[in-house]
Amino acid sequence: MKRVGVALLGLGTVGAGVFKALESNRDVIVKRTGLWVEICGILVRDSGKKRGVTGVQTLLTTRFERLLEQQVDVVLEAIGGVEPARTYVEQALLAGCHVVTANKELIAKHGVELERLARKQGVQLLYEASVGGGIPILGTLRHLLKSNRIHRFSAILNGTTNYILTKMESERISFTQALADAQRRGYAEADPTADVDGLDAAYKLAILGRLAFAAEVFPSEISCRGIRHITLSELDLSRLLGYRIKLVALGVQYGEKGPMSLQVGPALLPVSHPLARIEGVHNAVCLEGDVVQDVTLTGQGAGEQPTASAMMEDLCNLFLLPPDRDNSLQAATLLPMDAGGSRFLYLETREHLGTEHVTALRETLDRIGLAVTDIAVQKEGGKRLAMILRRWDPSYRAVLLAELGLNVTRVVDRPVWGAGSSETADTVLETTVL
Amino acid sequence: MKRVGVALLGLGTVGAGVFKALESNRDVIVKRTGLWVEICGILVRDSGKKRGVTGVQTLLTTRFERLLEQQVDVVLEAIGGVEPARTYVEQALLAGCHVVTANKELIAKHGVELERLARKQGVQLLYEASVGGGIPILGTLRHLLKSNRIHRFSAILNGTTNYILTKMESERISFTQALADAQRRGYAEADPTADVDGLDAAYKLAILGRLAFAAEVFPSEISCRGIRHITLSELDLSRLLGYRIKLVALGVQYGEKGPMSLQVGPALLPVSHPLARIEGVHNAVCLEGDVVQDVTLTGQGAGEQPTASAMMEDLCNLFLLPPDRDNSLQAATLLPMDAGGSRFLYLETREHLGTEHVTALRETLDRIGLAVTDIAVQKEGGKRLAMILRRWDPSYRAVLLAELGLNVTRVVDRPVWGAGSSETADTVLETTVL
Repeated sequence: MKRVGVALLGLGTVGAGVFKALESNRDVIVKRTGLWVEICGILVRDSGKKRGVTGVQTLLTTRFERLLEQQVDVVLEAIGGVEPARTYVEQALLAGCHVVTANKELIAKHGVELERLARKQGVQLLYEASVGGGIPILGTLRHLLKSNRIHRFSAILNGTTNYILTKMESERISFTQALADAQRRGYAEADPTADVDGLDAAYKLAILGRLAFAAEVFPSEISCRGIRHITLSELDLSRLLGYRIKLVALGVQYGEKGPMSLQVGPALLPVSHPLARIEGVHNAVCLEGDVVQDVTLTGQGAGEQPTASAMMEDLCNLFLLPPDRDNSLQAATLLPMDAGGSRFLYLETREHLGTEHVTALRETLDRIGLAVTDIAVQKEGGKRLAMILRRWDPSYRAVLLAELGLNVTRVVDRPVWGAGSSETADTVLETTVL
Repeated sequence: MKRVGVALLGLGTVGAGVFKALESNRDVIVKRTGLWVEICGILVRDSGKKRGVTGVQTLLTTRFERLLEQQVDVVLEAIGGVEPARTYVEQALLAGCHVVTANKELIAKHGVELERLARKQGVQLLYEASVGGGIPILGTLRHLLKSNRIHRFSAILNGTTNYILTKMESERISFTQALADAQRRGYAEADPTADVDGLDAAYKLAILGRLAFAAEVFPSEISCRGIRHITLSELDLSRLLGYRIKLVALGVQYGEKGPMSLQVGPALLPVSHPLARIEGVHNAVCLEGDVVQDVTLTGQGAGEQPTASAMMEDLCNLFLLPPDRDNSLQAATLLPMDAGGSRFLYLETREHLGTEHVTALRETLDRIGLAVTDIAVQKEGGKRLAMILRRWDPSYRAVLLAELGLNVTRVVDRPVWGAGSSETADTVLETTVL
């Protein structure tokens, strides 16, 4: 049996979860891995604070330096945010400790340099919990699909926004109402910016992209849009056309070691797409490999227990699974996402719309040479209309607005992602009136 | 770089797929694993037969003994069925070779003894491709969720039956018609028994159960029912009640090292269940762990490329990932699946049914003290009726038939599986008329 001395940084939701999981599953870990995990100390800001965890009092300290004075093999970082987490992780690596972290912002922004330092020190830095909560997505990429070329992946990486979109549809409420509900339930923070505007998903996409494409990707390079402006009518019309709107994180690599596109933003997925059915706070990642085809992993994207699980598994894996053999990352060439596939166009108008407008619209689109797959209009003379165009170019927007003959007060266009590049273009549907 | 000499048994769909994958991904494998895979020989029945694979002619042999005369480290078994595969695998292990196989029947029936032999010989036997095609489910259990206690899993493990059920609903056709369609497309064999009656799923469930619960499970001990008798009306009424009928493989363990239940059979899943939305030939496994909560893996459950991917990954993993530390399997105590949860009852009657029958039925059920969650009747005076009962005991069936006051010509009852034990019991729905 091998003793593993562990220092835990932080005793918030994640830290307390890890502590409890390591205590409750000690027997399983010993039996299956031969590791005896011993928590030597826990760094907290206030050692006098009441905690919902028993048996920690003698372990608490407010001084990081004191922690490493003990026989520590692994530092578990559960503080979050860049500082002081970055400094602590760096010092732990310099002291020859392995590090396991759940910190997506830290890894997205500083993971490349921290991994380089870890390698230099002959230790490992693992961060499964930073993407997709308990879903073992990084382990799957590293160890279980490593002889596949992953050329594309799509993912729902933010549970808060997925909860909001699900709630808007199921409860027939606005974005603002659904956000308030998410905040009440603790799924969204008081300042929801990081979730709602896609930043959190971009951190996770940077980490996934780096691993899947072996390239130096940083979150600042990722084009990122949020869900603030999505309306219930837009969700309804897209659904009527056979799609769901999700906040999708998409990664595409054009050829081995080739350039890549990484993007976070609301997109339409055909209802048959594995990600289209992910509801509530769940996360999912759909990997497309050259031999395996598609594999989708789904699970709880956050929360005390799933995050604790990922950190606990990482802790064991430090001593069981081999580090990546080839750690070299190429410099990434990031291209804008190809907008040439199908496109969803959503319009709000001054006039009440009916089937006569749809007929006129079809004629106009025909005349100017734009192929439309399907058109949906809000029922009972509503003022909202949506369509799926087979091909798209940003310049079409102005042309369309000029030619449509409608008093348009708002227009939104969004990408349509199929399983492959333009899968959806083949499905010709009929005009639908909501 | 380490040379790995490989002998391939069989050059059918799976064998040819593996050969092509190893050729096309040689560069990826070398770069990421440091292994140089060299195929030394291929065992076929007829070396003169035309093949859709180029570059194999000089490698073919019809004599197994000749294969092992070369420097073979790994035997890839892609023949299928028990004999002669079992003999070859045994001889390969005795000769000190690792073995990778896609053979679910062989592993389900003889895996325990073959793994024991492998251990004795100091080699490994891996079989990721035997369950769920390209989905890395065994690797996930072995390496990525090993410090979790898996207490329950549910799975769709047979693509053929899932295709048939999906097709019946989407095309409004009978079981027989959907089966014929599956046979035309090559998804079902001329003799569809192994798929349609649940045997294939039971093989895979035995393998999954063995790994998840560390117990000696054999397919002959698994209670197994198929989908032959499912009608379109039954699918319709269950959907109306908020459920999908799937051929579900379910494994439950009652406490660490405790007794377990393993069962394959048609069951109702709430539409919100991750498995309820698995369509067509896809497979999926939903694992429930004590810390991670639920994680679902979805992918193509069969086919040349996904199966080849799993075998190729296993081949690399022989040299990269550690074998299970604790290989001891406990003797399994198998209990019948607890039928105490919600139950779906489907009836065909002589009388045309209407809302008056539903009202009478509710009164009867109330009188005899059976709680019903929801009742659905076929529209326009149809003769089919279905309901969800909150609790169930096999003795209820006779009581119900006696008390219902209907001329019942056919009755079917099926289990309802939620995410947990009786999740669905809380959802009280209204009476629905199709």
